[in-house]
Amino acid sequence: MIPPIVLLTDFGLADPYVGQMKGALLRLAPGAPVVDLCHEVRPHCILQAGFLLEASRAHFPGGSVFLSVVDPGVGSARSILAARLGGQLFLAPDNGLLSFLHGQKTSWWRADADTSNASRTFHGRDVFAPLAARLALGADPSSLGRSIDPAEAVRLEQPWAEAGDGCLDCAVLHVDRFGNCLLNLRTEAMPARGRTWVLDDGRSVALVSTYADLAPGQVGLLAGSQGVMELAVNGSSCADLLGLLPGRTFRLTCTEPLP
Amino acid sequence: MIPPIVLLTDFGLADPYVGQMKGALLRLAPGAPVVDLCHEVRPHCILQAGFLLEASRAHFPGGSVFLSVVDPGVGSARSILAARLGGQLFLAPDNGLLSFLHGQKTSWWRADADTSNASRTFHGRDVFAPLAARLALGADPSSLGRSIDPAEAVRLEQPWAEAGDGCLDCAVLHVDRFGNCLLNLRTEAMPARGRTWVLDDGRSVALVSTYADLAPGQVGLLAGSQGVMELAVNGSSCADLLGLLPGRTFRLTCTEPLP
Amino acid sequence: MIPPIVLLTDFGLADPYVGQMKGALLRLAPGAPVVDLCHEVRPHCILQAGFLLEASRAHFPGGSVFLSVVDPGVGSARSILAARLGGQLFLAPDNGLLSFLHGQKTSWWRADADTSNASRTFHGRDVFAPLAARLALGADPSSLGRSIDPAEAVRLEQPWAEAGDGCLDCAVLHVDRFGNCLLNLRTEAMPARGRTWVLDDGRSVALVSTYADLAPGQVGLLAGSQGVMELAVNGSSCADLLGLLPGRTFRLTCTEPLP
Repeated sequence: MIPPIVLLTDFGLADPYVGQMKGALLRLAPGAPVVDLCHEVRPHCILQAGFLLEASRAHFPGGSVFLSVVDPGVGSARSILAARLGGQLFLAPDNGLLSFLHGQKTSWWRADADTSNASRTFHGRDVFAPLAARLALGADPSSLGRSIDPAEAVRLEQPWAEAGDGCLDCAVLHVDRFGNCLLNLRTEAMPARGRTWVLDDGRSVALVSTYADLAPGQVGLLAGSQGVMELAVNGSSCADLLGLLPGRTFRLTCTEPLP
Repeated sequence: MIPPIVLLTDFGLADPYVGQMKGALLRLAPGAPVVDLCHEVRPHCILQAGFLLEASRAHFPGGSVFLSVVDPGVGSARSILAARLGGQLFLAPDNGLLSFLHGQKTSWWRADADTSNASRTFHGRDVFAPLAARLALGADPSSLGRSIDPAEAVRLEQPWAEAGDGCLDCAVLHVDRFGNCLLNLRTEAMPARGRTWVLDDGRSVALVSTYADLAPGQVGLLAGSQGVMELAVNGSSCADLLGLLPGRTFRLTCTEPLP
Repeated sequence: MIPPIVLLTDFGLADPYVGQMKGALLRLAPGAPVVDLCHEVRPHCILQAGFLLEASRAHFPGGSVFLSVVDPGVGSARSILAARLGGQLFLAPDNGLLSFLHGQKTSWWRADADTSNASRTFHGRDVFAPLAARLALGADPSSLGRSIDPAEAVRLEQPWAEAGDGCLDCAVLHVDRFGNCLLNLRTEAMPARGRTWVLDDGRSVALVSTYADLAPGQVGLLAGSQGVMELAVNGSSCADLLGLLPGRTFRLTCTEPLP
């Protein structure tokens, strides 16, 4: 059985771009199940795409081929990466999108893509889809190009937040439909003590277990379903209240000493 | 052939939630066709989800497994229902979403779901998808949990409007892309006489056959494609004009005596 | 293997309409891959739908069945067309949607559709889907109705712009997620000379190779990935700046003599 090809892009669904990419995949790998992970990544937000891939991959079958195209450098000399981790395969521009796969048992290749017949602006359809089809049909990543050292791949600086001296420098990885802001704070790395934190503007943030623990309008921090902490407001959009978007950074300062 | 698994949620498509649910389904039931019915249910609007399911099920193949997740009580003690009607299977939280299936030849079960490894907030992926995969692979609903009496299931009060003394107390079940408001008035139950009705604000409503029978700006009531009456304005959004949303209720009063 | 059925509509994804159409297809042609090309055509914009189909068809497999439903005349006496071109099949209302297929090696049929059990407003599900299922299962288009002369089909007037005396009368075919306006100017038909053009309001338009060649706020014209010229503004929405929508027309005048 052909494994699923899983799509993650910033193309949106109002244009024919995702449809054309699927057409190319069906043409080259007939019978491959093509699945949408998400096409509403904020345009050009590599960090958000990398996170959505990282948060989602374990939920897909072994053998899945993940095709991720958030590609502000399309048409330039940026190259294409293939990676393998835990029996799954990953294709993306070499722009940091696969940063979250580093530090794991990942193998890396740089693909030699033929761009001679490609449009200048739509490599998702013209270059990436043919590579993904080859992988789904069973090609080894080594047939796409040479194996590389992980250090040769472009990598986002510190995708996960690290605790400093009583503070956490955070980035927003994703804003969901309800305006909850998913942060680059892994649930298991969240300092359990120091239950009260303040934002840059002095607003306090309560560490809670569920939305229902928050008073209306209160800002809280809680563990969600995506493996990271979420900044939320009970009953309204936290992103709107605080003016946050994927990629924005801010500091959380603890009002009690961290352990 | 594995039957289709049909998805209905209020998750939207801007988040990775639907994609992750599909990943879980592909992992547990490889080869199952997964079809989107709709993911834009108004958040937490159980009535709307129930209606969309009721209006759509007959258009899908026998054997289809409908997985409907609009679940404001996720993480609480609410249980999960399975139902069988006309050769199709239905899974949903026990919160009234399956209300429209009552009063028909439906069998009911309460699923014993294992939530020990589930996230607290995303049972669609962690709890419902595994159950749906089992049903699609041929498990009998009785293997999910004990058979129950329909009266044990949570049920929305009176999902369909009933004619009172010269008036109809209506609810909006769905607002479509054009702002037409689909009502809980079954086409066949609409009193044919009394061609003029008035809304709470005294505005008159014409009973017409097509949009074209309405003057610009005039509010009309007509039979649509979903088995219910629709409140519409020719050339603009009825929902905007009248401030209606799924779940809102209002009264239609007939200006002529009903038969 | 059953060929893909490719869907193009103006239904949007917030309603159950696309889902119900897929249900009907799965019921009548179990195992057929159903692919979304786009469902966000501007409501009733036949020109836009025709263009998206024309720009996309070559990216899909031979044998694909394209079901395109933008159907302002639904319920009226308009008939249904089937066409065959290059091993692919096309179904659409006879309203000009297939105009871009004219002037090519296309065969045409007028389908005898049974509308006796159809809703008055949703032929996509009740009439078109059954026809598409039959074609996907291998029926010859001639089994749907009689062969017709292309001249019998409704046809949009001049879908592609033609160069006049130092000017081009253009139409917007599509506005993409970034506000770029795709025009009915085929890339290969664009006069290469005359690098500066002006819009109706006197605003100048630069003919450039990439977005990066434009100063911020400058309006440019460049070849995109869809086979046509795009009107774009570097860093913001050209459609918003110029008030353009699919279907709008305007004149580009060359400030230098055309060759």
